[in-house]
Amino acid sequence: MEELVGLREGSTGKPVSLPELWGPCPRICQGIRGGLEWLKQRLFRVGEDWYFLAALGVLMALISYAMNFAIGRVVRAHQWLYREVGDSHLLRYLSWAVYPVALLSFSSGFSQSITPFSGGSGLPELKTMLSGVVLENYLDIKNFGAKVAGLSCTLATGSTIFLGKVGPFTHLSVMIAAYLGRVRTTAIGESENKRKEIEMLTAAAAVGVATVFAAPFSGVLFSIEVTSSHFSVWNYWRGFFAATCGAFTFRLLAVFNSEQETITSIYKTRFRVDVPFDLPEIFFFVALGAICGVLSCAYLFCQRNFLRFMKTNRFTSKLLATSKPLYAALAALILASITYPPGVGRFMASRLSMGQHLASLFDNNSWALMTRNSSPPWPAELDPQNLWFEWYHPRFTIFGTLAFFLVMKFWMLILATTIPMPAGYFMPIFIIGAAIGRLLGEALSVAFPEGIVSGGVVNPIMPGGYALAGAAAFSGAVTQTISTALLAFELTGQIVHALPVLMAVLAANVISQNFQPSFYNGTIMAKKLPYLPRIRSRKIGSYPVIVEHFMNTSITTLAKDMPLEEVLKVVTSTDVTRYALVESAESQILVGTVERTQLVQALQAEPASWTPGQQVPHRLAPVPQYCLQDILAGGCPTQPVTLKLSPETSIHQTHSLFDLLNLQLLFVTSQGRAVGSVSWVELKKAISTLINPPAPK
Amino acid sequence: MEELVGLREGSTGKPVSLPELWGPCPRICQGIRGGLEWLKQRLFRVGEDWYFLAALGVLMALISYAMNFAIGRVVRAHQWLYREVGDSHLLRYLSWAVYPVALLSFSSGFSQSITPFSGGSGLPELKTMLSGVVLENYLDIKNFGAKVAGLSCTLATGSTIFLGKVGPFTHLSVMIAAYLGRVRTTAIGESENKRKEIEMLTAAAAVGVATVFAAPFSGVLFSIEVTSSHFSVWNYWRGFFAATCGAFTFRLLAVFNSEQETITSIYKTRFRVDVPFDLPEIFFFVALGAICGVLSCAYLFCQRNFLRFMKTNRFTSKLLATSKPLYAALAALILASITYPPGVGRFMASRLSMGQHLASLFDNNSWALMTRNSSPPWPAELDPQNLWFEWYHPRFTIFGTLAFFLVMKFWMLILATTIPMPAGYFMPIFIIGAAIGRLLGEALSVAFPEGIVSGGVVNPIMPGGYALAGAAAFSGAVTQTISTALLAFELTGQIVHALPVLMAVLAANVISQNFQPSFYNGTIMAKKLPYLPRIRSRKIGSYPVIVEHFMNTSITTLAKDMPLEEVLKVVTSTDVTRYALVESAESQILVGTVERTQLVQALQAEPASWTPGQQVPHRLAPVPQYCLQDILAGGCPTQPVTLKLSPETSIHQTHSLFDLLNLQLLFVTSQGRAVGSVSWVELKKAISTLINPPAPK
Repeated sequence: MEELVGLREGSTGKPVSLPELWGPCPRICQGIRGGLEWLKQRLFRVGEDWYFLAALGVLMALISYAMNFAIGRVVRAHQWLYREVGDSHLLRYLSWAVYPVALLSFSSGFSQSITPFSGGSGLPELKTMLSGVVLENYLDIKNFGAKVAGLSCTLATGSTIFLGKVGPFTHLSVMIAAYLGRVRTTAIGESENKRKEIEMLTAAAAVGVATVFAAPFSGVLFSIEVTSSHFSVWNYWRGFFAATCGAFTFRLLAVFNSEQETITSIYKTRFRVDVPFDLPEIFFFVALGAICGVLSCAYLFCQRNFLRFMKTNRFTSKLLATSKPLYAALAALILASITYPPGVGRFMASRLSMGQHLASLFDNNSWALMTRNSSPPWPAELDPQNLWFEWYHPRFTIFGTLAFFLVMKFWMLILATTIPMPAGYFMPIFIIGAAIGRLLGEALSVAFPEGIVSGGVVNPIMPGGYALAGAAAFSGAVTQTISTALLAFELTGQIVHALPVLMAVLAANVISQNFQPSFYNGTIMAKKLPYLPRIRSRKIGSYPVIVEHFMNTSITTLAKDMPLEEVLKVVTSTDVTRYALVESAESQILVGTVERTQLVQALQAEPASWTPGQQVPHRLAPVPQYCLQDILAGGCPTQPVTLKLSPETSIHQTHSLFDLLNLQLLFVTSQGRAVGSVSWVELKKAISTLINPPAPK
Repeated sequence: MEELVGLREGSTGKPVSLPELWGPCPRICQGIRGGLEWLKQRLFRVGEDWYFLAALGVLMALISYAMNFAIGRVVRAHQWLYREVGDSHLLRYLSWAVYPVALLSFSSGFSQSITPFSGGSGLPELKTMLSGVVLENYLDIKNFGAKVAGLSCTLATGSTIFLGKVGPFTHLSVMIAAYLGRVRTTAIGESENKRKEIEMLTAAAAVGVATVFAAPFSGVLFSIEVTSSHFSVWNYWRGFFAATCGAFTFRLLAVFNSEQETITSIYKTRFRVDVPFDLPEIFFFVALGAICGVLSCAYLFCQRNFLRFMKTNRFTSKLLATSKPLYAALAALILASITYPPGVGRFMASRLSMGQHLASLFDNNSWALMTRNSSPPWPAELDPQNLWFEWYHPRFTIFGTLAFFLVMKFWMLILATTIPMPAGYFMPIFIIGAAIGRLLGEALSVAFPEGIVSGGVVNPIMPGGYALAGAAAFSGAVTQTISTALLAFELTGQIVHALPVLMAVLAANVISQNFQPSFYNGTIMAKKLPYLPRIRSRKIGSYPVIVEHFMNTSITTLAKDMPLEEVLKVVTSTDVTRYALVESAESQILVGTVERTQLVQALQAEPASWTPGQQVPHRLAPVPQYCLQDILAGGCPTQPVTLKLSPETSIHQTHSLFDLLNLQLLFVTSQGRAVGSVSWVELKKAISTLINPPAPK
């Protein structure tokens, strides 16, 4: 309660004059005032980060909810149009197809015209940024509008295009955090160190995931797994606090809008709680994980190669380079034609929205058993009470529909990922995984219609449990994360399958991580973004490799006793941002670094006699001679080298340093002499040599 | 399936001769053989860590289960004795009290006689070890027996002494991992680097928690939060894999022993799923978190000061130093006398075991409402179907019992933590938290007997939900972790209270982290173990502090041109493990380090003329003179300095380096010259100066 008072006071700015209220008791009044003052100080001291994170969470939740709301309206309008347009097949087809075509070409055209950074999910770029690389303008707030508008259009196409919003939302959240951070820096004047900034952006990434799924735990863990290579426990709370604020606000809005009675999970399931699965079923769960792992490898392989094909093929690369909206429209037309419900679409439940896909796949009844004796006709209209009817077609049965859905969505998703527009790829992968699990679950429920009898008790098999495990395992394998298991529980509000789902996810990850780079790492490689590959500890050959073997030995050093003529020559002939400053040309003792821009400024500020092209007095001439030392003394700032490597440092230690401290470049000194430098480029090359040693000639 | 074949083959060692089986198809046979060979290689390549982690998980689960089983038997024997001993109060009291007194004095005496390291939970020491400090013999396998036997006795006293097993189990698990690691090193001959070793031990800590609670997710997260300051995402899977193996085996044993029908969570709850709580209740959940935070501060404060009192008080310190079993027996007598059921014990549900305490507190009915009209008499015997009857006493009502339980257990737990024997302190704290939550929940259910009406729908309040939140919040506040929220869900198998519990845990953590060191950090400080304090980013004053201000400038360097006489003098007069080796006494250019033991060995191996006490030729004498250089050339190994600091490095960067890389000492060089060194000691002093700046004189 006291806190509330303190807050209220802080927020109005004008403290209630306590003496007026409590005039007669000056001592109590003074005590309370002191306490409030202390509390205020306390809150403000801890506070800054708090307020920032809370504001970020609430803001993102508002955006997420508003977007969902707007998209819901657009989708409803589309459904209404499709229903009311009459029975003419042409009209129906047009009303089905024109919508996504128009939305997608607008999404692609609009967002790409504002900034090319708005395409894709944004998570690969984010991962690169959070490892310390500066991507210019990537977090600029002007990209925000492009991404929001583009993403809304993409999502408004619903399950036709079949894309999600997790990745872009994470990008949006980080954008806002960067903007708020800049605002704060301007307002308070306190400059933040880079480390702190990265921590705040990591927390923002958690908010992005949490506000989409209303899942704070898995939001934090998933965003850490996807964007970071290590994590500091001391900054754990930031992510949790921001994600909780976001998830709470997001669900609160749903309650206020009377969609929900209280705060619950998004895709509530109703699995049997007493004996959710029988012991022998664990084996099938692990097998499902392995299947998902193999399929994820196939998916990642096809996806990467299709992207490469798109880039190398003359026709498509030209199309993508010149007229992106046209490409988007063409792709949307293909996807919409296939999902047209009276056509092929009826065999793949294309009338369901993505949320309905998930909700129906997690259904805890066995469809195969329910349709064994009675076969309901394919409904003319979507029945919201029995969503699973969509998955059943009298000619195809459940198995046919699910298999067809999987085969078609597999390549349709790959096609959709090539469209240059803001879109997330996690949700479709999650749904495909759920379908894989459902297929296995239905097969099992037919194979063991009485349930797997163990210990005399009969418990029918719930295919919904397998769908849950499949979703977690497949999405975990594609993104190579483990926290998708937790996400599955937070999304459904039930944790009864804790161990089997976790085992499936682990099995899927084992296979996927051994054979393919993850979805995000693959994209980083395809986009040629800088990244630091991982050294697998098993590579025993890597132990004796030391910095001396792979460092860049041709570094440009500036000696303090260098005549200005030579300095100019060096500055004009090289293009590095930072020079190593050494004591003298002979000793090469490293004393610091100097930034190129600052050096150039200092050089230009010197007397006119030093501008290039003019006669420079010879070094040995009796004329008084300027050297670099003079310029430095004249005000050009130098930076100390705070951390130095030795030529004997092992590649492992160097890798840890770069990875943990988000470094870009380190100088190597031997007995004080600058002998080389190591940057990501050298390190990457050294690691790739380790992994693929050059063939002996 | 293929994997299974590979595994089976690997485990029997004799591959089934395929040609014999499939004689007619040589090609297929060869293909399959090739595939199996490849799979075998693959499995063995990835394998070593796998096998190791799986073995660790299974082993720990077996130990955990066997211990539970044995303890269960002992407890049942005690209960039988207590029941059958007759109605004489004296006999009953003796049968109640002698048991724990005997067990505790044995536990304390036995374990302390083998090793003093076996006392307490072991988590604080583990935290110190995992940050890179070497605690000699702490992970020695000979401690294992002492800890297992002692812990079993402690736990067999049941809820009388009220202690748990999480901490010691984590210690046991890490012990086994260290032992297995040594076995592996001997068997394979591959020496592991320290970093890898620490990663394996972190995974082992996760196994410890997971095999106690059968909760792999929170096992991993809790152990990371408690024992590490950062973690690497790339090594995440180790913890999850090992913890899953452990948790699965642990629950599997319960199924095989017919305790469970299938694999489920330990303390299953049956909360209402549709509307588990109403929106306005969120406020009470957060308030509960704040209350738990305040109480945790009180607990931590009292606990630390009582420990200090025990150490400074002449009588108790003497008792603890000389006769630990006697102290344990005295404490056990006090605790057992208070919990004697026909005495005061009946007002604090002392007939319940710790598991029954939790199970009854998580009950989803409101006891206050159930006993409002009818008051059941206090049952003479424990009724396993209605455990909550124990919490009700006609004279005291529910509120009185709960409050009395809290007040008594508060100081009884503090007393129990002072007994030097293997015991965990997490579980009692968890139960106390549940009681706090239950008390608030019951109060609310009386205040709003119809439930909080919002939106026209009436949902009665479930005090069990508050108990869950209270348990998570109080244990989270005392240990200053967030993953206790997840643990609460994994333990109960329900996640319907996800957001309110998380919010309560966050609120409790805010208060606790701002006012008190955590339970484990407090113990580290009390035991004077080395630790690295945290730099709070808000301390703006800390930014301009650089290494130069706090480094140790009086380092002992050995110059290569130092005559042996001086080397001997230095070696005999100083007691560091490692000397900085410089090029020459004048230049002081750092070239490497030399270990003291190796140097002493090399010195002793030199010609007899160099033994101390003999006449050493003068430096300027014409006699050929030996110097350190000669000894080094003669075979004394030197180590390169792989990482060097500058005097300009900031305290923040130094702190990160020490923290992330688990360093102990770094040399500081300026222009190549060794000018100082920084170790934990200097860093800690510098940080404490920052936090408590010296008063201006």
